[in-house]
Amino acid sequence: MAEGSSSAAPLKDELDIVIPTIRNLDFLEMWRPFFQPYHLIIVQDGDPSKAIKVPEGFDYELYNRNDVNRILGPKASCISFKDSACRCFGYMISKKKYIYTIDDDCFVAKDPSGKDINALEQHIKNLLSPATPYFFNTLYDPYRDGADFVRGYPFSLREGVSTAVSHGLWLNIPDYDAPTQLVKPLERNKRYVDAVMTIPKGTLFPMCGMNLAFDRELIGPAMYFGLMGDGQPIGRYDDMWAGWCMKVICDHLGLGVKTGLPYIWHSKASNPFVNLKKEYNGIFWQEELIPFFQSAALPKECTTVQKCYLELSKQVKAKLGKVDPYFNKLADAMVTWIEAWDELNPTAASVAPAAAPAVSNGPAKGK
Amino acid sequence: MAEGSSSAAPLKDELDIVIPTIRNLDFLEMWRPFFQPYHLIIVQDGDPSKAIKVPEGFDYELYNRNDVNRILGPKASCISFKDSACRCFGYMISKKKYIYTIDDDCFVAKDPSGKDINALEQHIKNLLSPATPYFFNTLYDPYRDGADFVRGYPFSLREGVSTAVSHGLWLNIPDYDAPTQLVKPLERNKRYVDAVMTIPKGTLFPMCGMNLAFDRELIGPAMYFGLMGDGQPIGRYDDMWAGWCMKVICDHLGLGVKTGLPYIWHSKASNPFVNLKKEYNGIFWQEELIPFFQSAALPKECTTVQKCYLELSKQVKAKLGKVDPYFNKLADAMVTWIEAWDELNPTAASVAPAAAPAVSNGPAKGK
Repeated sequence: MAEGSSSAAPLKDELDIVIPTIRNLDFLEMWRPFFQPYHLIIVQDGDPSKAIKVPEGFDYELYNRNDVNRILGPKASCISFKDSACRCFGYMISKKKYIYTIDDDCFVAKDPSGKDINALEQHIKNLLSPATPYFFNTLYDPYRDGADFVRGYPFSLREGVSTAVSHGLWLNIPDYDAPTQLVKPLERNKRYVDAVMTIPKGTLFPMCGMNLAFDRELIGPAMYFGLMGDGQPIGRYDDMWAGWCMKVICDHLGLGVKTGLPYIWHSKASNPFVNLKKEYNGIFWQEELIPFFQSAALPKECTTVQKCYLELSKQVKAKLGKVDPYFNKLADAMVTWIEAWDELNPTAASVAPAAAPAVSNGPAKGK
Repeated sequence: MAEGSSSAAPLKDELDIVIPTIRNLDFLEMWRPFFQPYHLIIVQDGDPSKAIKVPEGFDYELYNRNDVNRILGPKASCISFKDSACRCFGYMISKKKYIYTIDDDCFVAKDPSGKDINALEQHIKNLLSPATPYFFNTLYDPYRDGADFVRGYPFSLREGVSTAVSHGLWLNIPDYDAPTQLVKPLERNKRYVDAVMTIPKGTLFPMCGMNLAFDRELIGPAMYFGLMGDGQPIGRYDDMWAGWCMKVICDHLGLGVKTGLPYIWHSKASNPFVNLKKEYNGIFWQEELIPFFQSAALPKECTTVQKCYLELSKQVKAKLGKVDPYFNKLADAMVTWIEAWDELNPTAASVAPAAAPAVSNGPAKGK
């Protein structure tokens, strides 16, 4: 466990919880035993004049669209509006090493014994233990109590690699696309699969943004949720886009991505007709996107996440621009995102007092 | 469900159960409710003069070393002696479409509700439903009741590919190598992970031979368990070798490999000191083997399992021969194995009465 953590709230001073929302955050009541020790970054989506109520006792900062515009200036164009993709502004403004992000329709799930699941604690375990992207272990997470590497697992690979991302799952309402929602309106996920595993190198997966933790220092700049929602021809692909970009970059840099535990309880089925309207371009385009990401190769010179991401933006423009002009716009936004990230997160070498934005005066502060 | 199956014993006439053994098969009593409808192929390891007792009521044929020598003639050299690797003779002599193989120290496990697990039934489900090697599904097997493909899963990949192999797992004694056994003598696997998943394309895994099912028509000739045991410098890598060869070939041919359910109960911890003696070369060599298999590429002309396997044998000789002369011998045995397979399994085009060996007179028959 890292320094400064207490056993009750591990990484308390090193982790921010990012929540995108358009409504009062009553859902936090249920999470109080687990989240209250942590700092929250709330990104208010939509109408900035609306007041968002946060339950008493939580330590938070809240950013609405006016804050985003003021802090990023012209670069605010890379942050989606009227879409939960705006959450990635919270990743950028954070100064912590770790991020956990969750949606306001996610509740505490119970494990098979009936005990409330502390999702954040499991994510932290996932992030602080290594990942094994180069060879599949049939007992799943080899670092877990009661498990190990099985016969035939090369010893040279048993130290694993640093874990950059921990992707949690959801019980109850499954994370289906609109067509599947329409076909199976009553399907619920009741299966608690007691496993955490590393997504192998070279394999893509559908990353959902509603129960996700990552190491900002290792992979933060790749966690851009794209241009979605208001004024864009696509929605509900923000987390997918981030997941595919992130995975290609993790594979290139030798970082690990895990999926599995912890579960949260997903309470609200979104409207499949609304979703279909948001998704239909994505459903069509993903047939081109997946082969693109599967074959994307980054040159050796890309030694930082930023360099990887900028290279990927070039490849997006070169290869996906012909799929739809939207991808040219997205490629430009990817560049703007990196510029904004670097502005808000100057490296030790480049820090100068004038370069640091006066963020602390901006947003509404809780507590 | 395929024709000729009853719901009580699916694929009854299309599946053989292959069991390598050196002792009386009392363990079958526990499996009687599940195995009795099926035909067993017992491959007796070691001293052929020893009589193996099979419980009453099972339909079986039994082959000892004398049978193997008589049936294969000089080609019998490719079948290991005094090692459970001899089980692959059973794969070769079978005339059925599917094989299930299990060891005599494997018992019936219980699911979390306390119910006996019908391992064979689950393997058949795994084999008869498609696999998804090209993209990871975070709800695991998308074809299972109550699950599906999640948002972001390309629709063009949702039909999956044919499943060639179903790799089951084990509760209780974990399948550890000797060093891990020595370090953790008391560790037991108590975690029932309720999932079946496809091993992604390009990812290798440690395949264990003690609870394994496969489609003989799709992948049989790749299921060679190598030269192990008596007179060989290595043991306990028979199933690993088969798994790595098989996976490279499945990836090349577009076939699927699943791991996960069903569990069996592994009752007997083998002696770690004996295992260390068998394994030490393998532990050393696997550091070279894994990069070899990870980078092995098969040319387009390899359109059948046999062609793939013969090509792989050439690459083994060319690239692993310098690791140890053993691999030259193994590469030759791989060729012999394919010759023997083709002799016992003539294709429709090549069938001639004289080519079919008089197997039916050979082995001891049950019932």
